[in-house]
Amino acid sequence: MKQFTHQFAVTTQGKGLVNINREIENWVDRQEILTGLLTVFLCHTSASLVIQENADPDVLLDLNDFFGRLVPDGDPAHRHQSEGPDDMPAHIRSALTQVQISIPIVQGRMALGTWQDIYIFEHRDSPNRRKVVLHILGN
Amino acid sequence: MKQFTHQFAVTTQGKGLVNINREIENWVDRQEILTGLLTVFLCHTSASLVIQENADPDVLLDLNDFFGRLVPDGDPAHRHQSEGPDDMPAHIRSALTQVQISIPIVQGRMALGTWQDIYIFEHRDSPNRRKVVLHILGN
Amino acid sequence: MKQFTHQFAVTTQGKGLVNINREIENWVDRQEILTGLLTVFLCHTSASLVIQENADPDVLLDLNDFFGRLVPDGDPAHRHQSEGPDDMPAHIRSALTQVQISIPIVQGRMALGTWQDIYIFEHRDSPNRRKVVLHILGN
Repeated sequence: MKQFTHQFAVTTQGKGLVNINREIENWVDRQEILTGLLTVFLCHTSASLVIQENADPDVLLDLNDFFGRLVPDGDPAHRHQSEGPDDMPAHIRSALTQVQISIPIVQGRMALGTWQDIYIFEHRDSPNRRKVVLHILGN
Repeated sequence: MKQFTHQFAVTTQGKGLVNINREIENWVDRQEILTGLLTVFLCHTSASLVIQENADPDVLLDLNDFFGRLVPDGDPAHRHQSEGPDDMPAHIRSALTQVQISIPIVQGRMALGTWQDIYIFEHRDSPNRRKVVLHILGN
Repeated sequence: MKQFTHQFAVTTQGKGLVNINREIENWVDRQEILTGLLTVFLCHTSASLVIQENADPDVLLDLNDFFGRLVPDGDPAHRHQSEGPDDMPAHIRSALTQVQISIPIVQGRMALGTWQDIYIFEHRDSPNRRKVVLHILGN
């Protein structure tokens, strides 16, 4: 059994989803593991990871809009206001999704469905440098 | 350290939760792994996985109803309408839950609590064939 | 490749977040694994796990309050009322978060970001003894 780790960063452009599937796929390919488990981990509390549809880009816009309505910026109910009106909502949106996804590797590839890609979901208005850690193990 | 993968499909019957614990448990038993890690992965973006109470079936109905109220079908706010009024809401409900769950194997069994079972949460109205990929590793 | 499992319990004090990072970190340190994967699993359906900000404690209060507003106790829409007005909402809040988180181990430490700690999110009003199972594998 072999294992490898890798780290990369993505600069987001404000709220929305950023496709990181290609970058992950390229790294997985180079590890030459036929059967195993890949773990994707995001080192932040105001962004998150989601697996979403890769066909119609409107899905990504609608998803982002829904989270904006469900957890509106500037909600006066929040105590934590010091980092801006979009900070506490960002933490909540992160908790409603997740910062880790593990995917089986089967026949040398991630076992994603046809329509599944992996995205960083940025919840802050400002561009941010987001760090992703990958871990793979297998044979 | 050994590892195995397995794939199976479940036909859902419209919105709601389908218990897949027995099928997973039977496969885990046959791998004869005493200590290890099981990963369950669902290859879809309009259904998801949840661990929920296995005692009172009303919990499953209430959970499904809540998600129906939180993310109503036919919301005119969505751009993505081409696949029907229940499609974009299904993607959002999937993002609010998850498509992957990993469970430690301890003494040859999944370390689930007494009341925990694994379910597919179908978010579309139509019956769908949903693909599940399992990965286990351990000794 | 080595692997180890561990189990511990935490007594919560009603709704809110309980930091379990130190306890997990101490156990990880003792396993002397430089590169690997840690899985944290919570054996319950009315509490959950989240990774959240460890700097401003107001974030934890705001997060708990938000979930209280999103999934209010005593909602008459629920069929499942027999275990109290906070039980079905607790199951829903658990489904909206998760009961499992896996974290890569890099250079002997969990690859958490600077602001990330692991918390149990208690969703019931009463104190509860919550069981956590850890699994680590690596070298």
